[in-house]
Amino acid sequence: MEQTLSSRHSSSTDDPASAVTRTLARYLVNAQPTDLPAEVRAHTISSFVNWLGCAVGSTHHPAVEIALAALNPFSGAPQATLLGRETRTDVLTAALLNGISSHVFDFDDTHLKTVIHPAGPVASAIMALAEYQHIDGEAFIHALTLGIETECRIGNAVFPDHYDIGWHITGTAGVFGAAAAVGKLLGLDEQQMVNALGLAASQPVGLREMFGTMTKSFHPGRAAQNGLTAALLASKGYTSSPQSIEAKRGWANVVSTRQRYHEITGELGERHESLLNTFKPFACGIVIHPVIDGCIQLRNQYSLSGGDIDAVQLRVHPLVLELTGKRTPQTGLDGKFSVYHSAAVALLQGRAGEHQYSDEAVRDAQTVQLRQRVTAEIEPSLAPDAAQITLLLKNGQRLEKTVEHAIGSVAKPMERADLAAKFTDLVTPILGESQAAALLQAGWDILSCSDMSDIARLTQPKA
Amino acid sequence: MEQTLSSRHSSSTDDPASAVTRTLARYLVNAQPTDLPAEVRAHTISSFVNWLGCAVGSTHHPAVEIALAALNPFSGAPQATLLGRETRTDVLTAALLNGISSHVFDFDDTHLKTVIHPAGPVASAIMALAEYQHIDGEAFIHALTLGIETECRIGNAVFPDHYDIGWHITGTAGVFGAAAAVGKLLGLDEQQMVNALGLAASQPVGLREMFGTMTKSFHPGRAAQNGLTAALLASKGYTSSPQSIEAKRGWANVVSTRQRYHEITGELGERHESLLNTFKPFACGIVIHPVIDGCIQLRNQYSLSGGDIDAVQLRVHPLVLELTGKRTPQTGLDGKFSVYHSAAVALLQGRAGEHQYSDEAVRDAQTVQLRQRVTAEIEPSLAPDAAQITLLLKNGQRLEKTVEHAIGSVAKPMERADLAAKFTDLVTPILGESQAAALLQAGWDILSCSDMSDIARLTQPKA
Repeated sequence: MEQTLSSRHSSSTDDPASAVTRTLARYLVNAQPTDLPAEVRAHTISSFVNWLGCAVGSTHHPAVEIALAALNPFSGAPQATLLGRETRTDVLTAALLNGISSHVFDFDDTHLKTVIHPAGPVASAIMALAEYQHIDGEAFIHALTLGIETECRIGNAVFPDHYDIGWHITGTAGVFGAAAAVGKLLGLDEQQMVNALGLAASQPVGLREMFGTMTKSFHPGRAAQNGLTAALLASKGYTSSPQSIEAKRGWANVVSTRQRYHEITGELGERHESLLNTFKPFACGIVIHPVIDGCIQLRNQYSLSGGDIDAVQLRVHPLVLELTGKRTPQTGLDGKFSVYHSAAVALLQGRAGEHQYSDEAVRDAQTVQLRQRVTAEIEPSLAPDAAQITLLLKNGQRLEKTVEHAIGSVAKPMERADLAAKFTDLVTPILGESQAAALLQAGWDILSCSDMSDIARLTQPKA
Repeated sequence: MEQTLSSRHSSSTDDPASAVTRTLARYLVNAQPTDLPAEVRAHTISSFVNWLGCAVGSTHHPAVEIALAALNPFSGAPQATLLGRETRTDVLTAALLNGISSHVFDFDDTHLKTVIHPAGPVASAIMALAEYQHIDGEAFIHALTLGIETECRIGNAVFPDHYDIGWHITGTAGVFGAAAAVGKLLGLDEQQMVNALGLAASQPVGLREMFGTMTKSFHPGRAAQNGLTAALLASKGYTSSPQSIEAKRGWANVVSTRQRYHEITGELGERHESLLNTFKPFACGIVIHPVIDGCIQLRNQYSLSGGDIDAVQLRVHPLVLELTGKRTPQTGLDGKFSVYHSAAVALLQGRAGEHQYSDEAVRDAQTVQLRQRVTAEIEPSLAPDAAQITLLLKNGQRLEKTVEHAIGSVAKPMERADLAAKFTDLVTPILGESQAAALLQAGWDILSCSDMSDIARLTQPKA
């Protein structure tokens, strides 16, 4: 026993159970951009492009407009861009507003193991700072990777108990991700990083009770701003606990009944949670995605138009009807909870983006007509990311499609072209076609960007 | 049973267990300054004066200096004063910094039932807004009362379980107090107030793990800023849950294992928790206060000087030696945890303010000499606010004093003159004698103040 303990000690400087915060801080401080495997770097670039498209695309959502109207009178010098607008605010306000914007369509990324939406809190914080401090793209992508890694690992340590208690884990774990990433960009030393994580630990944001209200998207925005504030304070010498995550009255014990600290400190730099980040191809709850995927495939494969189709028969996982069984949606938001509407727009338009869930879209006559011909049955043997679709055509033909893994799942991630199409769909209405294309290219090319303020400026609509 | 339930329903518009948030919001929106009993108004004025003295007196503490240096580059127009300084920042930043300042000496007020320090989160938020919006003193005191009432009632509902879990209740309950008070000053309607409380519920601040670090005083500051942000967003139409406090996944269930909602909604406007707010006469842990009180009384009664005393024998509650048993303190902060040092300064100087707990004070030769003649014994039969002191004088005389209830306890509150002396002691080093006196007078006369910016300006040191 003596020997086991001693050899465990010798394998790392600190006892993992008593030095979680410090071990994580040390890793963050010592990590180098060149340590990142190429696939990790590439995946983070996808996370960035997906986040940027969501943030720009939602920039005129009422939640963003209201927050801007409320807080603008108190904001500071024009240091950072509200993505998709000409308006610039101070860095802290921009982090909050861009964080709200990036989440409000519920179209951002998902770490499926924890249901954290990782980019919102982290990218919103560092984008504002990077514009202000003219940070380059390589440092930005490295910090974004570290931030995502930090929040997902901390999420792993407490999921699902923490989420089941009622915390919106994107906001509660996200604040650590933002603090870590900003701390990295600010060049914090180990003790300062420990203090930044401590200040983050004291500021968890978000209850699941707020789902369905604007406060849900406030959570990633405020997490971004809290983490940014934490790192800024720590950079000037503000002090905090040395064991904020693992202490008896530290974060993990206070907000969760489960603590698996090895998830935080194990295989740092070797196991990459950020690779498990996924992107939504469709602007609705993830349980309907297999149906939409199959409908789009059938439409494209057989060049179908709405008039060809007599009936649509779906076999789906039980959760689909439990969560998205609305037969006659009245609003765009209702449409997101209707597998019938989703199947109809997928067959008619070949997509299910934000436009297919507008109030107009759910009232469109052709859509309503096809929607009424959709039926759905539960098939308990199906996996959550699978579905079976049968189309009966007016010419008597019968077409079938089985989706084993919906696009956007870990097993079948969105390809770069899919992400590009999603981005273009979101950003074109705000910036126009050519500027949207230029911004997308700048996103893919971020590693060669010498100053992130160039990308920020590209999100401002030309007059 | 049926009848009991029905009569309970008839006594209020909503079922108290399902409409906690709305019932509280409705009360806050409808409350009028003229409803306040005179003693409640007077007690809130004392809370204000005590808070103002603490905030001005601590304005140059390193925690405040660091936070200002870190956040000033991102702050907005000079709308609100950092109390005790010439510097003005935007309202949100001022709320944070003044909240830090008001708590950092651990000398602010205490609602003993919940150990909430009530004024910090509430007064720091509304002082900044009131200066900016030129609000009058009567409206200010009314809002401060409502904010203190809100946070203490919410604290009562979850104490002690919530505190035992590890939350710093001043920050977690304080955010509701700040949102309620700011919401009142902004004239929110009932639905907006419900939303403000919801946005507050999603932003609890503070872990007890941070005690002993600067992050502890960050908690009331951030609670002030979070509540202010919540009310500002709600005033422009930002939406939140209608049952943020009491829902299955609402605040009380997520952060506590105990929920007594009647503490929040019962006897609103009739039972005044704000009357139970107490003020610390001495700048150290409350368990030593009976000893200090008795020593000061003996000193003044017999006009003692240090040279007269041969030995000091204390009989104290067991907690005193457990928490404050440091025999030879090395720093001012150590001194706050030494009943021996505290007795010595009380006998020598007749006070135990912040100056008696400086690094110099614990090294003062005369103090060290007397400290070495102090002995303390546990007397389990004593109440926590009681102590027995015996002095053996060099002339052979033996003096005894039994303190039944220390000054500052609920049973023996600080008188106005005591509060004035504490205020003067804190503020004079910052503003000088005559301006400190003028500010104190303005505090007592707050009800006749037509514009709170006059009081804010009085806290700025004259060049």
